[in-house]
Amino acid sequence: MSGTESPVVAVLCGDRRPPDMDPVERVATVRYADAGGLPDALRGADVLFVYDFLSRAVPGAWHAADRLRWLHIASAGVDPVMFPELRHSDVVLTNSRGVFDSAIAEYVLGVVIAFAKDFAGSLRLQQRRTWRHRETERVAGTSALVVGTGPIGRAIARLLRAVGMSVTGAGRRAREADPDFGRVVASEELTRHLPHFDVVIAVAPLTERTKGMFDARAFAAMRPGARFVNVGRGELVVTSDLIAALREGHLAGAALDVFEQEPLPPESPLWTMENVLISAHMSGDFVGWRNALVEVFADNFARWREGRPLRNVVDKRLGYVPSTP
Amino acid sequence: MSGTESPVVAVLCGDRRPPDMDPVERVATVRYADAGGLPDALRGADVLFVYDFLSRAVPGAWHAADRLRWLHIASAGVDPVMFPELRHSDVVLTNSRGVFDSAIAEYVLGVVIAFAKDFAGSLRLQQRRTWRHRETERVAGTSALVVGTGPIGRAIARLLRAVGMSVTGAGRRAREADPDFGRVVASEELTRHLPHFDVVIAVAPLTERTKGMFDARAFAAMRPGARFVNVGRGELVVTSDLIAALREGHLAGAALDVFEQEPLPPESPLWTMENVLISAHMSGDFVGWRNALVEVFADNFARWREGRPLRNVVDKRLGYVPSTP
Repeated sequence: MSGTESPVVAVLCGDRRPPDMDPVERVATVRYADAGGLPDALRGADVLFVYDFLSRAVPGAWHAADRLRWLHIASAGVDPVMFPELRHSDVVLTNSRGVFDSAIAEYVLGVVIAFAKDFAGSLRLQQRRTWRHRETERVAGTSALVVGTGPIGRAIARLLRAVGMSVTGAGRRAREADPDFGRVVASEELTRHLPHFDVVIAVAPLTERTKGMFDARAFAAMRPGARFVNVGRGELVVTSDLIAALREGHLAGAALDVFEQEPLPPESPLWTMENVLISAHMSGDFVGWRNALVEVFADNFARWREGRPLRNVVDKRLGYVPSTP
Repeated sequence: MSGTESPVVAVLCGDRRPPDMDPVERVATVRYADAGGLPDALRGADVLFVYDFLSRAVPGAWHAADRLRWLHIASAGVDPVMFPELRHSDVVLTNSRGVFDSAIAEYVLGVVIAFAKDFAGSLRLQQRRTWRHRETERVAGTSALVVGTGPIGRAIARLLRAVGMSVTGAGRRAREADPDFGRVVASEELTRHLPHFDVVIAVAPLTERTKGMFDARAFAAMRPGARFVNVGRGELVVTSDLIAALREGHLAGAALDVFEQEPLPPESPLWTMENVLISAHMSGDFVGWRNALVEVFADNFARWREGRPLRNVVDKRLGYVPSTP
């Protein structure tokens, strides 16, 4: 649109409003709403900014979206808003691709080294004031499969390669000579490839095709002693199958930042497993991430007002932003 | 020497004999000894292989070294054998330079990321089955000073740079355009440079010049919130000054693999400090390190028998193997 009329922007947020919204507020009517207030905010709104990206409130309020043209979500994964009515509508969907790449890649490299060097074991010994020398592993020369070849997966691949790991990607299409991965194998044939890697990292978008892809069959296919890292979505994993594979000792460890149910319930056996590292869906949330998220929206909002192409447009059939090959 | 006569090799070891000694045993008389048996083993020996590199037994047995020509130590630091009689003798001293570089560099990168991402905090929350989202730091764009420009310091610099940190070295001579560090500042002016770094890593050899170099003055010069990593020697640090700087909150954290007293005594306050990560002098000890150490000795032993130049010859005035350039 080009603007005599002031556009209406609905913002779905919880207790905490997004920072740095001045550039948007100067040129738009901005309605901040929580889940309960969302239908009223959506009525007559041109744009919806889903700042509370974990909220599941959008489908239930969708009936009120009577003139919505664009929905932007403050996350990389768009699964919380991939309900059929949006998917089949003309509403453009954009995400926050790029914000989390570097931070998540650092987290993944960190847990890979933490496992190799048994940092958790050192901390437990420290709590008991116990000095115990152990031999640990080298990271260089080990191999990783990064399942998910979007920008976060690419950032992970670059960092793991930088420390001497050999990295392969798994994506929709098998291919060679990828700039970040070298080789990419087809996710459809995952179990055929899983036996060849010391570490398997899940960072695929959550779609109907990827849901539950890490199940008993996948874990059984992994190399004995392999480790598993999930920084994608909890629902990529059949949690009970993962727990079984860890308990049997087939997998040596798992670092989990995302879970089928979040917050992870106190009764989950994962909490007390010594070979599991748990973090609270925070691997990408560096100091300043909220400002960075609003910056992505504000940049896209300026593009939208000026009729320029939006960035990070999601292919709603695929469920993610396709890479420009 | 070139060999009609079978040379005598004394090996100082504890309960555990070095593995893979066959190539040496085939051509030499090898006498394995613990601290008590060392004088007898040394009498008439041509070579001393200090496999138990933490032992302080060599000076006390030195009187029996009546024909020793070469001493090899299975460590990078040679401080346990830098006593005046050896220093002023004609006995050649070699070390195990190179074996630990990559493993120690990975450990350092790992603790740098572990601090940035608060892995210790996540583990403590996990033990309490508590889900708590936090914002964490990015590593890329932060700065590190590596104090010690030998091969271990260089390996550390390369890995930290590979993840986007800006790295400077501190060594005996200030210089520019170093292949691994870019800029190297003079250790003599350390306090002038310390304020400029987020992380300070101690990996200098222990000599009269470096002993206690990290004292109250050095810690006070560090940036508030800086972190300190010691993978060199415990005696580089005045431990009580480090504890004070951590308690005051001037330093945000310390990862310590080496200590003035090892094993670290149970009563040390370091054990219970939440911003301290303790490991048991093991950062370089990857699975296979003992074999790698013997391989370095066996290679040098073959050189010695054939009259070829030894590798890793220590400059006994400096207390370490000088870099080639």
